[in-house]
Amino acid sequence: MTRSPASAKGLSPERAAFIKAALESQGCMQLLGAEVDEVSAGRCVLSLRARPQLMQHNGLFHGGAIAFLIDNTTTAAAGTMTPEGQLVLTAEYKLNLLSRGIGERLVCIAEVVKPGRMLTVVEAKVHAEVGEKSKLIAVALATIANVDR
Amino acid sequence: MTRSPASAKGLSPERAAFIKAALESQGCMQLLGAEVDEVSAGRCVLSLRARPQLMQHNGLFHGGAIAFLIDNTTTAAAGTMTPEGQLVLTAEYKLNLLSRGIGERLVCIAEVVKPGRMLTVVEAKVHAEVGEKSKLIAVALATIANVDR
Amino acid sequence: MTRSPASAKGLSPERAAFIKAALESQGCMQLLGAEVDEVSAGRCVLSLRARPQLMQHNGLFHGGAIAFLIDNTTTAAAGTMTPEGQLVLTAEYKLNLLSRGIGERLVCIAEVVKPGRMLTVVEAKVHAEVGEKSKLIAVALATIANVDR
Amino acid sequence: MTRSPASAKGLSPERAAFIKAALESQGCMQLLGAEVDEVSAGRCVLSLRARPQLMQHNGLFHGGAIAFLIDNTTTAAAGTMTPEGQLVLTAEYKLNLLSRGIGERLVCIAEVVKPGRMLTVVEAKVHAEVGEKSKLIAVALATIANVDR
Repeated sequence: MTRSPASAKGLSPERAAFIKAALESQGCMQLLGAEVDEVSAGRCVLSLRARPQLMQHNGLFHGGAIAFLIDNTTTAAAGTMTPEGQLVLTAEYKLNLLSRGIGERLVCIAEVVKPGRMLTVVEAKVHAEVGEKSKLIAVALATIANVDR
Repeated sequence: MTRSPASAKGLSPERAAFIKAALESQGCMQLLGAEVDEVSAGRCVLSLRARPQLMQHNGLFHGGAIAFLIDNTTTAAAGTMTPEGQLVLTAEYKLNLLSRGIGERLVCIAEVVKPGRMLTVVEAKVHAEVGEKSKLIAVALATIANVDR
Repeated sequence: MTRSPASAKGLSPERAAFIKAALESQGCMQLLGAEVDEVSAGRCVLSLRARPQLMQHNGLFHGGAIAFLIDNTTTAAAGTMTPEGQLVLTAEYKLNLLSRGIGERLVCIAEVVKPGRMLTVVEAKVHAEVGEKSKLIAVALATIANVDR
Repeated sequence: MTRSPASAKGLSPERAAFIKAALESQGCMQLLGAEVDEVSAGRCVLSLRARPQLMQHNGLFHGGAIAFLIDNTTTAAAGTMTPEGQLVLTAEYKLNLLSRGIGERLVCIAEVVKPGRMLTVVEAKVHAEVGEKSKLIAVALATIANVDR
């Protein structure tokens, strides 16, 4: 994710606030307890603190919680690049789980690889944090469609 | 998912019950309110009833809820084929969202395409149900690793 | 690939012949020696005979040859469902290699899972044939975009 | 691909030469005319010059040629991290085509994201070059399995 063609363009504070509010209003965000850490041009960061309900029977973060972060950050990152009057819908994504999801907090960073008129391609990386340490535990590649409102 | 090489082999009732109990003991299953409908040789079915907390801000099932079902059913389906003494871990999956997730209930059916000594490949399909009607809203392809316990 | 919503609709013989000719005119099809076995509504079948140049250094069909078949069949299958005056472009695909690609011939069958106004989702399966026997060696899931000509 | 955990470890010149020779001995590499530009720890670069046979009927690089580069570079990059006495086999990959493949030359760079005992996850990026200019046209994420020889 070295390249961020999106970051050259601006994102109005109003649009960033709109996307942040849309994320925070999701029942699922509240149910899981996820926080919106950043919404900027071509980029979105969400995080999730460890809680028993987010864990698998063996004490690891559930893959579903990791997928939830990836789904939401990639869609929101694409949404920062979408023309006014269009909505974003996830067409598909693929994720690789790299390491066991052990930690106090998950942080998911999504960055637009290629914005497009119809489709935006977004990469995401999920880190698990324990104290000062951070470990890459998942990577993903998503295709988000722009659709008329 | 016409082929189910797994279904030829048996799955002991004890092992099926063990996998079902492992799924039901997950905090995440309880948090989302998912139900285990079937665990058989090479196959797992989970479902989820619509609730406000599972919805996006526009009233659709959240993609994260769909991913959660896919993650869990594919892993459990692979688990039915795993040799005794081994655990299953999701290596990766890819999902396509086909239609808006509108409905009273989501049903996810995962079937093993190819069991393996190291890796099992599993397909999943998610349907949204409204009354008697059922609509295919997502398809997925997952790779599950067998690891020593 | 049990469902084929596309097959209900017709595909004119002219359009089928146009897609077949477009495939056969590709330099890559000729270079690899691939054959078009079927183009019908929501479906395309291509095959490839074993030749030394298509093999890896260990005598297996090269993964690139398998990917070539998947790329071409999924795009052509989507093309059978596309409105007149639109072109199809592959947005993305994911493939799983299930078994070593040993055989005299590869056959790739692609079927549309969900046609759409903007995006068509297609599944593909690749079999390797030895004499009368056929073995599933790869599965794939592709997203094809409809674009204005 | 900012992170390259692999690059910390060494790759013996003998092993690098072995991997390069294995690539160059593939019939498919010769058939397509691909060149091995780099094999280093956790990294592989291959390139392909434009030729009529590699093109689609509309003059773009064929998606199959792009997939071929991705398949080979990701497998070779994983191979640089594999313990002696083990082989690498591609389990799966997913690629996104970002822009039309127009150019004089394709360059594919694969870098290991996460090496593992059983599975190695690799990212790849494909650029199309025209004169001095280079454009990102595809990204991919691959899972490569280590298997006993």
